[in-house]
Order: sequence, then structure tokens, then C-alpha cells
Amino acid sequence: MSNVTLIEYADASADVRAVYDDIMASRGLKDVNNFWKGLAHDPKTLKRTWESLKDVMAPNGALDPVTKEMLYLAVSMANNCEYCMKSHRAAARKAGMNDDMLKELIAIVGMASETNALVRLYQVPVDEAFDGPIF
Amino acid sequence: MSNVTLIEYADASADVRAVYDDIMASRGLKDVNNFWKGLAHDPKTLKRTWESLKDVMAPNGALDPVTKEMLYLAVSMANNCEYCMKSHRAAARKAGMNDDMLKELIAIVGMASETNALVRLYQVPVDEAFDGPIF
Amino acid sequence: MSNVTLIEYADASADVRAVYDDIMASRGLKDVNNFWKGLAHDPKTLKRTWESLKDVMAPNGALDPVTKEMLYLAVSMANNCEYCMKSHRAAARKAGMNDDMLKELIAIVGMASETNALVRLYQVPVDEAFDGPIF
Amino acid sequence: MSNVTLIEYADASADVRAVYDDIMASRGLKDVNNFWKGLAHDPKTLKRTWESLKDVMAPNGALDPVTKEMLYLAVSMANNCEYCMKSHRAAARKAGMNDDMLKELIAIVGMASETNALVRLYQVPVDEAFDGPIF
Amino acid sequence: MSNVTLIEYADASADVRAVYDDIMASRGLKDVNNFWKGLAHDPKTLKRTWESLKDVMAPNGALDPVTKEMLYLAVSMANNCEYCMKSHRAAARKAGMNDDMLKELIAIVGMASETNALVRLYQVPVDEAFDGPIF
Amino acid sequence: MSNVTLIEYADASADVRAVYDDIMASRGLKDVNNFWKGLAHDPKTLKRTWESLKDVMAPNGALDPVTKEMLYLAVSMANNCEYCMKSHRAAARKAGMNDDMLKELIAIVGMASETNALVRLYQVPVDEAFDGPIF
Repeated sequence: MSNVTLIEYADASADVRAVYDDIMASRGLKDVNNFWKGLAHDPKTLKRTWESLKDVMAPNGALDPVTKEMLYLAVSMANNCEYCMKSHRAAARKAGMNDDMLKELIAIVGMASETNALVRLYQVPVDEAFDGPIF
Repeated sequence: MSNVTLIEYADASADVRAVYDDIMASRGLKDVNNFWKGLAHDPKTLKRTWESLKDVMAPNGALDPVTKEMLYLAVSMANNCEYCMKSHRAAARKAGMNDDMLKELIAIVGMASETNALVRLYQVPVDEAFDGPIF
Repeated sequence: MSNVTLIEYADASADVRAVYDDIMASRGLKDVNNFWKGLAHDPKTLKRTWESLKDVMAPNGALDPVTKEMLYLAVSMANNCEYCMKSHRAAARKAGMNDDMLKELIAIVGMASETNALVRLYQVPVDEAFDGPIF
Repeated sequence: MSNVTLIEYADASADVRAVYDDIMASRGLKDVNNFWKGLAHDPKTLKRTWESLKDVMAPNGALDPVTKEMLYLAVSMANNCEYCMKSHRAAARKAGMNDDMLKELIAIVGMASETNALVRLYQVPVDEAFDGPIF
Repeated sequence: MSNVTLIEYADASADVRAVYDDIMASRGLKDVNNFWKGLAHDPKTLKRTWESLKDVMAPNGALDPVTKEMLYLAVSMANNCEYCMKSHRAAARKAGMNDDMLKELIAIVGMASETNALVRLYQVPVDEAFDGPIF
Repeated sequence: MSNVTLIEYADASADVRAVYDDIMASRGLKDVNNFWKGLAHDPKTLKRTWESLKDVMAPNGALDPVTKEMLYLAVSMANNCEYCMKSHRAAARKAGMNDDMLKELIAIVGMASETNALVRLYQVPVDEAFDGPIF
């Protein structure tokens, strides 16, 4: 075995419990994911990461929750993070993604991997119409 | 200068023109992007890539066009392909993505990059609840 | 267990069987790889991917089959895809790659990883002699 | 401007000149590439890298020179190193790669990028027939 | 031109100015880097990123400032981010990194790229002595 | 099982034993890591890689041993190489890295992953003050 040990609520410090409590309250869960139980070895990083994630994934933004979770999932796929794929797949499904949506998402990630490569290999110059500052 | 030369419609073979015509007709454009004009040096790859992309991005699927384009954009960002970012940003905007949606998308890609890394660094074991076959 | 379930021929739809039949006929096999049995959950992506792969790896091109398979293997190694390394290693061996060829291939992939990094780290400008359009 | 300054033969130390001399003699060139002129800021790394590369790319191995250069090129493409793509494209062409071979090589790198991604996204289990020690 | 526009102090909102003020005060600078001036288009992401970075790079930790900056630089090199390499190279130099230290750092990043690749290519099993939970 | 077989000292050729002997003598160990036992299938690559690594990680340089090992570890993390993370974590600990140092290192790698991504996504232009040749 070679993974991180998991810090359960019962064994956690007050600092860590405060974060766990906020995660469970925000998400309506009775326990937190292994991700947080591993990060809890570094309470400062745990707190900072949770605050950031809560901020980024806040429901009252310009994108709806299922789109946000699908974007998170697609990036985790591109980054080849198995844990992230599995946890965000679960989150996206909970937010409304069904199997057909997931299959299309996967086809897009796969196709983008090929065209991203082809663009680089052919060293395609940017079209004038696409250029200009992002913001 | 070091980019690929671009094959314009006027100079293209009949095979290449047929693909260009289909791209312009499918997308309601008067010209094709530089991507296609570069790929046209290999007409077989041009045709295959266009057929695949048309199939993957077809509008009558489970995901709406703006979500599909935003997923394509997010993956292109994760894959660090500048041309792809710019061309799919333009496509996503045309499909309805505004600045606030793009800012949220970027924040998600950035945050996912950090948590994807943290998961790997902490070697977090997959939660039982997330495990099981994808399909 | 967390992998995709595999769709065997006996349980496959007519669409999927038609692709399986073409794969087996083209490659002289009695069964298809797990890759195809997993992709079969999305028959459209299965068919498109097979058609593309058959096209790209067609034997009557400018490169001989063992070179094509070794290139596929080297890229799969660079992309860190374990399944792909194993399946394309098997394919390359079948096409004529022996252990000494594989060891040289690995040494090249390893060495390229270092010099690719050094070039970027030293931010080396492109030699005039190497510049100019790819095609 | 932001690249490394290049150390020309005239300005190089005896250590660096010895490496330059060996590169030029081994390759039948009258000058060395910018890669070496940049690395020359760290003579120890210059020497080590050249010795390693000479060893890995030695002509009397199991693979012929054009195959070796094409493998180096394909990996440099997968690793997205522009300088490396350009310098190894030149080297591969010198060793016998023509435009049709390059187009097939690019199509393989592009296709591998997609199937590598699909394998990971579908989390395909390795076929028994492909498993077993590499050596 | 295709980069983000930069929001200068004079044109920034009160929210953005507050972050700029804190960055300048914390680092003893009279202006902020372009990174912050670009991120300022999304004040929420600007503030969150700065708070996180200030926390992660705080001087009173277990690692000294030059080591922290060199680690940041090495990772930015591995991730192939040119802007990050340049800005963190400047920061590491300010914290005490000289040219010899940078050359050794680069040699390590280059060498790690090769051995990381070789380990994967040879599919080396983890030594018992190295296994066990990280924390 | 799918890993490389390991070549133990007792079964090794004289060439391989000579490298093993040098590794054990240089590091004060009674056995070599699995990495070397796998690479031993290609004695030339084994010898070249060991000579290079010994050179790069030599103790009499500008950086102290624990910093060098932490840099190697950070890059292995960024490159997502599990074996490398584990073996270099062990080496860094032996050289003096404690848990608090490791936690800070991880936080830096994670944070760099996010800011590296944000810089690219926002397409931030390089500050004049950071530009100029690396050496």
C-alpha cells in the first residue's frame, strides 16, 4: 500500500473539523471525500483549497452547476487524473449529466486531443479574425 | 517565418475544395479557417479530420452547442494549444458564451489544474462511492 | 473495480458487430481488443475511431508497417498511456520489432525527453537553417 | 528579446571547442546548431548531453538512421517542443524522410493523441494477451 | 496582437486596487507584474489567487525563500510556462539564486525528464523500501 | 503482472555488475533500486544514465543535496511519475527533508500548477523587466 492515510472526522483537529463541517454543510453530505481526508495532513492547504474550490464552483455564477462540473471533468480527463475523473464524474452525474451527455463529452475531449496535436504539428498560424486580446 | 503555407480555395485541388465547400456550407461561412488551409497539404487527413469533427460537434446531440464549444475550449486550454484556444474561443462566443462565462470557465480550468496536481501529489485513494465501471 | 465493462460480440448490437467484423477481417484476428469492447458503449465513436485508425495505419502508405507501429508506440510512451504502450508494443512486435529495436526506441524516447526539456529551459532560438514552412 | 545568448566557436573555451569539434566531425558539419551554442553556457551539461546523444543516435544500431530520426521527431511533436520539431525534422529529412513520410508520421502522432485520450477516458483494462513483462 | 489587455492601477476598480496595494506592500514593489494586471479582469480570481500565493510563499515556513522560488521555477519549467519561467527566475534571482545554481537546477530538470520517462517506459515496479503512505 | 523483470546482481553480466558496484559505492548502499535492475536489460542505457545522474547529482556543486533532491522530487511530481516521486521522496528524506518541508513543497507544486495554467489562459505578455537572455 502506498497511498496517503486518511484523517477521519473523529481523529481530526478542530481546524480540520471546521473545514469538514463547512464542506458537509455546503454540499449536503454526511462525510467528506478522501481528497479532503488526505489534504487534512496539511490543514492550511486543506482550508485554502476548500475556500478556493467553494468560490470557483459557487452555484450563483454565469454557468449552471452541471456545465461547471462537466468542465471540471473534461479538464481532469485532459490532465489524466484518475481520482479527479471519478470524483467529478460522480459530481457531474449528481448535477444532471446522463450517460449520453458523458459520451459526447468524452468524444469531444478525444477529438480535441487530436486536433490540438494536428494544429501544433502543422504549425498553423492564427487567423486574423481570431486574434486580439482575450479581454 | 516558420509556419505552414496556407492552401487557398483558388489553388486547391478538387478533393480539397469539396471539403472546403462542406465546411463553409455546414457552418455558414464564406471561407475556412487556417487550420483547414494548413491540413489541406494532406487531403486524406483533411477529409478524415473534418468528417470526424463534424460528427463529434453535430448540433443534434445530448449537449447544446455552447456547452460543446466550451468543453472543446477548456480541453484546448488544458492541452496548451494557443491556436485552438483562440479558434474555439471565437466559436464558443459565436455560440453564446459571454465574458462572464469565459471568466468562470478559466477559473475552473485553473482550479482543476491545482486540485488535479494535489490529488496526485497526496496519492489519494479513490472513494468506494466513486468507483465502479464508467459504463 | 473501476474500469469500463466490455461489450462482447455476443452481446453487441448489429452496428457494433459490423465494426468488430471489419476489425477482425482487416487484422486477421478472431476477437477484438478491449479498447474496442470499451468504446462500443458509444457505437458512433467506435465506428469513427476505427475508420480513422484503419485509414491512418493503412499498409500501402509511404512508411512500412513496423515503422508506423513503432511511431505509434513512441508517441503513446511520450503521452504516458499504459494501455496504448502495451497494445502497440504487441502490434509493433507482430510487425517485426525485436527486443534490440525496442531498447533503442526507448533510449530515443528517454533522450528526447531530456533534450526537449533542455531546449525549452535554455530558450534556444531556432536556427535560420531549420526555419521555413513545414509544407 | 529573451532567448539565451549563443556562444560561437571563436568565443568558446577549450572545453566547449572540443565538444563543438566532435559534433562537427561526427556529423560532417561546418558549424553546430544553436542548441549546442546555448548549452555551452554550462560546459559540463554540454559535454554530457552530446556524449549521450551521440551514443543514443549512433548509426550502427538495430534501427536505421531515418527511423531513429523520425522517432525523435514524433516524440518531440508529442512533447510540443518547437525547436526540437524543427531541428529533428531537418535531420530526418537529411536522413531520407520525404514529404509523404512526414505527412503519415504527423497523421500517426495526431491519431495516437486521440486514441491515447480515449483509452484513458474509457479506462480500458489491459488485454491479457498484451500483459506480461516488457523484458 | 493577441494578449490580454493590462489593467493599470490608475484604471483599476477599488477592489482591484486593494489587491494591488497588498501585493506591492508585501513585496516592496512600486508596481505589480503583468500577471496581476491581466487577472484583474476577473477581480474575484485576482483576489483569491493572490491570497493563495501569499499563503503558499509566506517567508516564515519550513523552507527558505530561495528554495521555494527555485521549486516554483523548476515546476514552471516542467510545465513549460514561459511567462512563469521568466517571472520566477527573476524572483529566485532576487532571493539569492546565482547563475551556477540556475545551471544546476536546469540540469536536474532535464535529467529528471529523462529518468521520469525511462521509469515509465520500462514500467519499473516500486521498491518495497519506497512504498508506504506519504503521510 | 506487467512490469519489467528485475536483473539481480547474481544474474547480471560483468558490465552491469560494474555499474551496480559503482552505484552502491557512491551511495553507500548494499543493493541498487529497481530502476537500475530494470534498466539493466539495456546495459548501455544503464551505464549512460547512471553516469549522467551521478554527474548531475554530484554533491560538490552550487546547490546542497537536500535542495537538489527536492527539485528532482518536485519535477517528478509535475511529470506525474509515481515511481520517481516515491524514490526521490525517499532520497530527499534521507538528505534531510522533513514532513513540514514536504508539505510546503507539495503546496508549491500545486499552486504553480494553477498559476502556470492561469498565465497561459489569460495569455499574459512578459514584463519588460523579466525579459532578456537567461545567460
